[in-house]
Amino acid sequence: MADREAGPRPGGRSARVQASVHRAVRELLARMDRAEVTIPLIAQEAGVTPSTIYRRWGELNELLADVAVERLRPDMVPVETGSGRGDLLAWAEQYAEEMASGLGREMIRDVLAAEGAAGPRRCCAYARQQIETVAARAAARDEAFPEIDAVLDRVIAPILFRILFDEALATEKVAGLVDGAFAGVGGGAR
Amino acid sequence: MADREAGPRPGGRSARVQASVHRAVRELLARMDRAEVTIPLIAQEAGVTPSTIYRRWGELNELLADVAVERLRPDMVPVETGSGRGDLLAWAEQYAEEMASGLGREMIRDVLAAEGAAGPRRCCAYARQQIETVAARAAARDEAFPEIDAVLDRVIAPILFRILFDEALATEKVAGLVDGAFAGVGGGAR
Repeated sequence: MADREAGPRPGGRSARVQASVHRAVRELLARMDRAEVTIPLIAQEAGVTPSTIYRRWGELNELLADVAVERLRPDMVPVETGSGRGDLLAWAEQYAEEMASGLGREMIRDVLAAEGAAGPRRCCAYARQQIETVAARAAARDEAFPEIDAVLDRVIAPILFRILFDEALATEKVAGLVDGAFAGVGGGAR
Repeated sequence: MADREAGPRPGGRSARVQASVHRAVRELLARMDRAEVTIPLIAQEAGVTPSTIYRRWGELNELLADVAVERLRPDMVPVETGSGRGDLLAWAEQYAEEMASGLGREMIRDVLAAEGAAGPRRCCAYARQQIETVAARAAARDEAFPEIDAVLDRVIAPILFRILFDEALATEKVAGLVDGAFAGVGGGAR
């Protein structure tokens, strides 16, 4: 699944406004309670007019979701461990820890609070891309690897479900989820 | 896991206020956009003062979450089909359809939008209770049945993950999730 983003042209005025507004949101969130963050405050911090923000994002929820999705964009490729199972486990353990952290929970919540499915789908697409990277490496080594959708359902889904609706899984439990995703996947070339 | 609710004593004044405020919220949500629903409007519809609502729920998000959790409380036991797998499949298919509906999505969103984990955990506890009912019937028939947590991770988690972050699963796919939960569960008595 391609990650189609309708982002602004890099380096243009629109991109500079976006970068500066995003930075302002991150800085305000770092030093005050989110309930106190308002669009006029963000505009002041970013050096733009409030109407610039209203025009582009419509409302605060949408802007917070946009910033959260951007923060959830992976900034590195999954670590190489020598096997597909090892790569997936290392990546999924880190993902589980990041998402269960205070910042991770806030980001998930912001992403889900906005209207529309675009933000959540971008988050899903980011996870999918990382898993595809791991799967492609495994394929290059002729290793068996589960379908990407099976990894989403069996590894990512329980991690997020537990964070949102129950208690976050202990990191040690992630290995069991990864084993579950590999169950029934034949050995050898896929 | 017991569903410990700190609800008001049934029939008391507090319970009547709660019932009337909840009913007012449901009626307003049925006839106007949720963005237009306010605490003063709800108070008027429920025949209570706004301060009664502020005192009890604090803010609109909390009240909407409370109403949503109440709507998510199961109002029937899972249908009996003659086998644990059949019972689980019938229940999970209905659950997947209800949660993916417009009303279901709104309820999930309201539950997750409130501060604190109490609402989401009650939803998780409701699902757990229903699965426990199915599991107890299976045990009484000496059938193998997966652990409750395995059903949560393998059936409920992917259903909710897809609704929240991707596209809702087609109902036909629920059978595959149920098969996954049963994989590795031995036959015979458990």
